[in-house]
Amino acid sequence: MSENIQLEMFDNPRPGRDYTITISVPEFTSVCPKTGQPDFGEIIIEYIPGEKCIELKSLKYYMQSFRNKGIFYEALTNDIVDTLAGACQPRWMRVTSSFTPRGGITTDVSVEYSAEKRN
Amino acid sequence: MSENIQLEMFDNPRPGRDYTITISVPEFTSVCPKTGQPDFGEIIIEYIPGEKCIELKSLKYYMQSFRNKGIFYEALTNDIVDTLAGACQPRWMRVTSSFTPRGGITTDVSVEYSAEKRN
Amino acid sequence: MSENIQLEMFDNPRPGRDYTITISVPEFTSVCPKTGQPDFGEIIIEYIPGEKCIELKSLKYYMQSFRNKGIFYEALTNDIVDTLAGACQPRWMRVTSSFTPRGGITTDVSVEYSAEKRN
Amino acid sequence: MSENIQLEMFDNPRPGRDYTITISVPEFTSVCPKTGQPDFGEIIIEYIPGEKCIELKSLKYYMQSFRNKGIFYEALTNDIVDTLAGACQPRWMRVTSSFTPRGGITTDVSVEYSAEKRN
Amino acid sequence: MSENIQLEMFDNPRPGRDYTITISVPEFTSVCPKTGQPDFGEIIIEYIPGEKCIELKSLKYYMQSFRNKGIFYEALTNDIVDTLAGACQPRWMRVTSSFTPRGGITTDVSVEYSAEKRN
Amino acid sequence: MSENIQLEMFDNPRPGRDYTITISVPEFTSVCPKTGQPDFGEIIIEYIPGEKCIELKSLKYYMQSFRNKGIFYEALTNDIVDTLAGACQPRWMRVTSSFTPRGGITTDVSVEYSAEKRN
Amino acid sequence: MSENIQLEMFDNPRPGRDYTITISVPEFTSVCPKTGQPDFGEIIIEYIPGEKCIELKSLKYYMQSFRNKGIFYEALTNDIVDTLAGACQPRWMRVTSSFTPRGGITTDVSVEYSAEKRN
Amino acid sequence: MSENIQLEMFDNPRPGRDYTITISVPEFTSVCPKTGQPDFGEIIIEYIPGEKCIELKSLKYYMQSFRNKGIFYEALTNDIVDTLAGACQPRWMRVTSSFTPRGGITTDVSVEYSAEKRN
Amino acid sequence: MSENIQLEMFDNPRPGRDYTITISVPEFTSVCPKTGQPDFGEIIIEYIPGEKCIELKSLKYYMQSFRNKGIFYEALTNDIVDTLAGACQPRWMRVTSSFTPRGGITTDVSVEYSAEKRN
Amino acid sequence: MSENIQLEMFDNPRPGRDYTITISVPEFTSVCPKTGQPDFGEIIIEYIPGEKCIELKSLKYYMQSFRNKGIFYEALTNDIVDTLAGACQPRWMRVTSSFTPRGGITTDVSVEYSAEKRN
Repeated sequence: MSENIQLEMFDNPRPGRDYTITISVPEFTSVCPKTGQPDFGEIIIEYIPGEKCIELKSLKYYMQSFRNKGIFYEALTNDIVDTLAGACQPRWMRVTSSFTPRGGITTDVSVEYSAEKRN
Repeated sequence: MSENIQLEMFDNPRPGRDYTITISVPEFTSVCPKTGQPDFGEIIIEYIPGEKCIELKSLKYYMQSFRNKGIFYEALTNDIVDTLAGACQPRWMRVTSSFTPRGGITTDVSVEYSAEKRN
Repeated sequence: MSENIQLEMFDNPRPGRDYTITISVPEFTSVCPKTGQPDFGEIIIEYIPGEKCIELKSLKYYMQSFRNKGIFYEALTNDIVDTLAGACQPRWMRVTSSFTPRGGITTDVSVEYSAEKRN
Repeated sequence: MSENIQLEMFDNPRPGRDYTITISVPEFTSVCPKTGQPDFGEIIIEYIPGEKCIELKSLKYYMQSFRNKGIFYEALTNDIVDTLAGACQPRWMRVTSSFTPRGGITTDVSVEYSAEKRN
Repeated sequence: MSENIQLEMFDNPRPGRDYTITISVPEFTSVCPKTGQPDFGEIIIEYIPGEKCIELKSLKYYMQSFRNKGIFYEALTNDIVDTLAGACQPRWMRVTSSFTPRGGITTDVSVEYSAEKRN
Repeated sequence: MSENIQLEMFDNPRPGRDYTITISVPEFTSVCPKTGQPDFGEIIIEYIPGEKCIELKSLKYYMQSFRNKGIFYEALTNDIVDTLAGACQPRWMRVTSSFTPRGGITTDVSVEYSAEKRN
Repeated sequence: MSENIQLEMFDNPRPGRDYTITISVPEFTSVCPKTGQPDFGEIIIEYIPGEKCIELKSLKYYMQSFRNKGIFYEALTNDIVDTLAGACQPRWMRVTSSFTPRGGITTDVSVEYSAEKRN
Repeated sequence: MSENIQLEMFDNPRPGRDYTITISVPEFTSVCPKTGQPDFGEIIIEYIPGEKCIELKSLKYYMQSFRNKGIFYEALTNDIVDTLAGACQPRWMRVTSSFTPRGGITTDVSVEYSAEKRN
Repeated sequence: MSENIQLEMFDNPRPGRDYTITISVPEFTSVCPKTGQPDFGEIIIEYIPGEKCIELKSLKYYMQSFRNKGIFYEALTNDIVDTLAGACQPRWMRVTSSFTPRGGITTDVSVEYSAEKRN
Repeated sequence: MSENIQLEMFDNPRPGRDYTITISVPEFTSVCPKTGQPDFGEIIIEYIPGEKCIELKSLKYYMQSFRNKGIFYEALTNDIVDTLAGACQPRWMRVTSSFTPRGGITTDVSVEYSAEKRN
């Protein structure tokens, strides 16, 4: 995660209850580390919160921190899982990224995290 | 729940029978507690009534009580479950909220309640 | 059921065989007991007949008997199950009602009946 | 079955093999025995043939034999099963009829036959 | 199979691996043996190859060999299974034919073959 | 694989985690070995990476290496699985190819690879 | 028009105003005069009334009078225009009939009438 | 036109009136004169009849007469206009043919005829 | 035009009549002269023939002649108009090309030719 | 225009002919000058070239030059017209930009340029 971005959390209003939050970020952009060209895609975050929830305005800034960063799709999807799961310690989380064509090729990456497996 | 709103119940006409009621509120609005900006979304309420059913006109006023209230999506969805489930003691309830984009980001929250689990 | 409506039955032509009849009534109207305003909805009746089948013309008149009656959605859906299941003694029946928006709110009610459970 | 219609069968070309034939008759019409008004619907016949298959031109004439006949939906659907299953002795058959609105009400009837149950 | 058509096979490039080939023939035509009128339909062939795969150009000619042949839907669907399965000895095969309306009636036939059952 | 194409891999950023990468190549073209005519199709690659991920620019060049190569659909789909799975040793992979009509006939081929089965 | 059917009219409530009435009859059936086989189609009637409007229950009986009548599509569409326009003297009328496939061929006939042209 | 096919006409029931007949033949097939391979397409015939209308059963046989005939799309579309317009002398006619892909290429041909231009 | 491709013409079967031919080539591919990367697109050719029509098999080979040629979209669209219009001298022609995204950018080029303007 | 971006032109291959080029840039992003937040939108460029055409790879870089620039929608749409029309002197050009919602509000800007009006 970019060092000057502070991802904020707030207390889960019902920590004793399992429920699902789905966040869609259709305006994601980063930079290809190989060509220096911009990449465009959509990021979908689904999670069951533990003690903390992700505050959406700081999430927006976190997502914007990739704007001029050179990073592969596979790395950024795993980074988002690690950063978000590390910050809010959810019971379960899945992050799915879908990128628009580059050289006629489209790519999706889907990563799951479970508190029990700690993977 | 806003203190000057009185949510009304009426007797379940067939308390001895399991059946499902689905209520959709596509015109929900509240205020972001962080930015003071209005949020717009749809609330879906599904439940199997116990002894009481929710009267719809008072539900409409209850839903309108969020109009000028600053509250996060996660908190309001859980509040609706707690208020409605507290008032009508259903056998089962699920509340799902879907909000339109803010800063290019959309959010859904889905919460279930079960009389047996008392969560 | 309105007292001056006579719901007619006819002999099930194959009482020894389990088969399903699905009846859709998309032009249902009743009156809200709280506001006196008309409600509009669709009623779906599914059943496996026992010794008797429901004659459709008398069903139409029965459905029309709700036109000027003040009744909640939950009560009328249960009433329809009780009246129809009482009259034709089906092996199984489900009645689903879907009402158009009132005050921006839509409502569905779904009730099942089973001869074995006698609920 | 109308007495002057001769439903024809032909030898199943592979009687030792289970396979499925699906026949759709979207242009079915009969007459309501109560009002004398025409009814319109679609009949779907699915079956696994035994020793015989149903010849389609004679099936067309059989279906046309209902054109001016007064008969309830429930009876005609069961009649079709009895006539067709009686004539071709299938391993399994299902007949589904879907009728267009009468008095604002639509009706479907679905009947299954199995050689093993002999129902 | 028409005697002057030579269905060609080629060696399965990976005979040790189970994988699926799906071939769609939407421009199939044959002749009704009863009326002499042309029939039109689509043939779908799905199979898991054994030692041999079906060469597509010769399959096209085989499919064209039905163009002026009088044959019932049930027979031709079973014939295609027998000819293709006989020629390439697949581990599994399914042929589905869907014909356009004749006399207002449409017909589908679906036949499966399994190397284990040898049916 | 064409000898002058170097498929590149990069280290899986989270080798300890099972996650899925889906790559779609809708602009694939090769040549029919029988007729010399160009074929057009879409290739879908899904995999769970092991120690290595497939770099997309080199994948694009690998896909372009089929542009003027005469090869059957069945062989090229299996070749792609063997080349990609050989290069990146995934935990699981599936390659599906869908080709546009030739002689009125369309063809799909779907091949799965699993590290456990080593097929 | 069948002689024992009496098409009824009623006074146009606003004869001084041009407005359009569209009537759809999707359950039309007649008989082919050449083959004796039933035909099925939809009749659409659009008109700007003059002094009289067409009463719909009598129109239904008029449409049913074609049920067992042998008549070509072109003749019946023109007959309907002549009968309806003759009975209600509209300022303008168009009748469009759309028949389902016979021998793989579908047919539409569209006829306009204008009071000014008296055609 | 194939010499052994007799296209039949019948008297236009309203020769004094301009109206439109639209005939769709989605099951058209002919043979490519260059490759000997079958072609498949849809023929749409629109016309305003003069003294005569085209009888549909004979039209079906006329359309079937192209089944095994080698002819280019452009020639057959013009032939159909010449044969039909020559036989029924319409006030106006348009024939549109749409053929399925051959070698990845689809073709439509659209020809108009007008009695006034006599083209 | 590639020198070893011979575009063939045949005599327009009705040179005295204005009619329209529409040819769609959805499987077009060429090479970017700047990057050497393949481009993919669809070419639509519409024309009113003069004395000659374009033979489709030779058109297919002409279209394939761009497969490994480096050429800009604007030049190839104009080249196709010049080659085809030069060869068949149509009364009117329009060629439209639509290319898939490169660097996230899609491009269409549309060129018209008219015999009168000789442009 | 960003000073370090060199927009390239190439000679119009047919300067004597009026024809239309349509370029779509669905992955456009810039920065709001008021909030510093990223904006996302699609830019459509249509033009009739004069002596020069716009080279697409340099256009891509020009479009990317807005990525981190603070500029209002109205200004950037006009800037694009001025830069592109200034560079290639088209006979006619239209640039349309469509931006995704900000604060629940979407915005489109459309600007035309004509060589004759020199606006």
